[in-house]
Amino acid sequence: MAIVVIRQDNKIELWKNALQKADSSLKVYSYLEDHPKDEITMAVIWKHPKGTLANYPNLKCIASAGAGVDYIFEDETRPKNIPITRIVDPFLAGDMSEHVLSVILAHLKNLNVYKLDQVANVWEPKEYLRIKDVTVGILGLGELGALTATDLTRFGFKVQGWSRSKKNINGVKTFSGADEQQEFLKTTNVLVCLLPLTPATEGILNKELLSRLPKNAYVINVARGGHLVDKDLIELLDADHLSGACLDVYHTEPLPKTHPFWNHRKVHMTPHYASVSDTNSVIPQIVENYKRLNSGEKLQNLVDSDRGY
Amino acid sequence: MAIVVIRQDNKIELWKNALQKADSSLKVYSYLEDHPKDEITMAVIWKHPKGTLANYPNLKCIASAGAGVDYIFEDETRPKNIPITRIVDPFLAGDMSEHVLSVILAHLKNLNVYKLDQVANVWEPKEYLRIKDVTVGILGLGELGALTATDLTRFGFKVQGWSRSKKNINGVKTFSGADEQQEFLKTTNVLVCLLPLTPATEGILNKELLSRLPKNAYVINVARGGHLVDKDLIELLDADHLSGACLDVYHTEPLPKTHPFWNHRKVHMTPHYASVSDTNSVIPQIVENYKRLNSGEKLQNLVDSDRGY
Repeated sequence: MAIVVIRQDNKIELWKNALQKADSSLKVYSYLEDHPKDEITMAVIWKHPKGTLANYPNLKCIASAGAGVDYIFEDETRPKNIPITRIVDPFLAGDMSEHVLSVILAHLKNLNVYKLDQVANVWEPKEYLRIKDVTVGILGLGELGALTATDLTRFGFKVQGWSRSKKNINGVKTFSGADEQQEFLKTTNVLVCLLPLTPATEGILNKELLSRLPKNAYVINVARGGHLVDKDLIELLDADHLSGACLDVYHTEPLPKTHPFWNHRKVHMTPHYASVSDTNSVIPQIVENYKRLNSGEKLQNLVDSDRGY
Repeated sequence: MAIVVIRQDNKIELWKNALQKADSSLKVYSYLEDHPKDEITMAVIWKHPKGTLANYPNLKCIASAGAGVDYIFEDETRPKNIPITRIVDPFLAGDMSEHVLSVILAHLKNLNVYKLDQVANVWEPKEYLRIKDVTVGILGLGELGALTATDLTRFGFKVQGWSRSKKNINGVKTFSGADEQQEFLKTTNVLVCLLPLTPATEGILNKELLSRLPKNAYVINVARGGHLVDKDLIELLDADHLSGACLDVYHTEPLPKTHPFWNHRKVHMTPHYASVSDTNSVIPQIVENYKRLNSGEKLQNLVDSDRGY
């Protein structure tokens, strides 16, 4: 029984060391080093190279080292019928909520536009909006969406949310399913996408949906680049239907330097860093699941393979 | 008995019309038109040309059309020994609180720096801060400072405040006087200046005071340009003692285009628009005081001429 860490960034040694520090009896390998593949029972992965999961004949659990798991389902060569777990990091949801709040307030108070004015040596006061007059609509009411919605009500926003299946959140007006999407959109001033990326949500932020927002609505995508149809967003910004957008995620990351978002005055970019997993807070969850796996107990934070999240 | 409106921006007619709309029996004049000077009992003013107040022999009240009154005390030719009133606009304090919150969150989440990166076509994720780890210190606990402090505790910040005389605000650690300023400063991560501008506070944000903040502290000035010694701020930013500053107010406004703040990477500018008086919400206060003046009742929102605010 051993763990393999598979990821393509420069954090393999960090994760290996952190796992071993948490429990020195663990056997942990990098997928890049020589390692006994038939001993591996758990793969701790983040955006692994497709195909690498097929190398482990005795794999019993795929543990995503982040909240997202969409990249696992995109790998058709993954072992099917074994459990997939994800990270439920208490800071991850809180960090996302604080990021969304900061981006909404920057919009209300024109901070990004003032920064562009400063760069251009322009002094031009602009009307601002007040929290009480803004309805935030959250697409997706999972862990991150639900906490963000609750926090925003606490800060004085009117908050509503839409999800596939009906959710109840204190102080938040909730909508569900295709039937209620129209009503949700037409009363939303700031749309925040926090959906999981699945075949059903890919490209959901398209011209048809975004057109149903009221004029001057603002769009925030902090979920996945695949949710957004880039050219549709630009078209609605240029037509002055939308007042602006703040994006943290993109189809390709880093965003290619020639992409029109870079120079668009109404697009405000952050480099996929709204909320990042903190190794210290997530390692214990993975170690706990590894122990449960070995003793045959029920795993925590399981992903529903049918729904894809 | 009549009112004169004196201000140098383009809002004289707006104010005249709003006062007459609130009570059609009022006699209201612009100081620019022909008007019977000896009939004037109340001057409704905002940054009036110095000397103009001396033209009214029967003036009984100077009503500032904003929260600030420092510009009145700077006019030595003003009639002394008549009451000065100011605006206590419920939105003014709330707007300021929302502005300060937005500016603090933009700092925590590096939004201004990301906007500069976007302009420069640079993708560079940066560590962010969390609300729970930040202590905000508010200099000045008047109407605006007190509400901002209270709101920030509600949003999860640790908040402390310093004022001339001791104040008690629920959930806020308060300091007062020169003796306690050192302790206040050394534990403040984000310093917010909301002091009135008086001879005692002019230039208070100088090298001596700002040096006592911990390394990487952030400074927000939303009070008056005269509180800040510009070159001292730049020196401490360049020495990496301070991590940045967001300024809404300046010694000269609009800020001259050659001022070094414009091009300083760590200075984030807004054009004196953090919180502006909304005519609709302040007119009733002025009309009420005018009626009280005529009937000899005690005026509301009186300024203490000794303290200057």
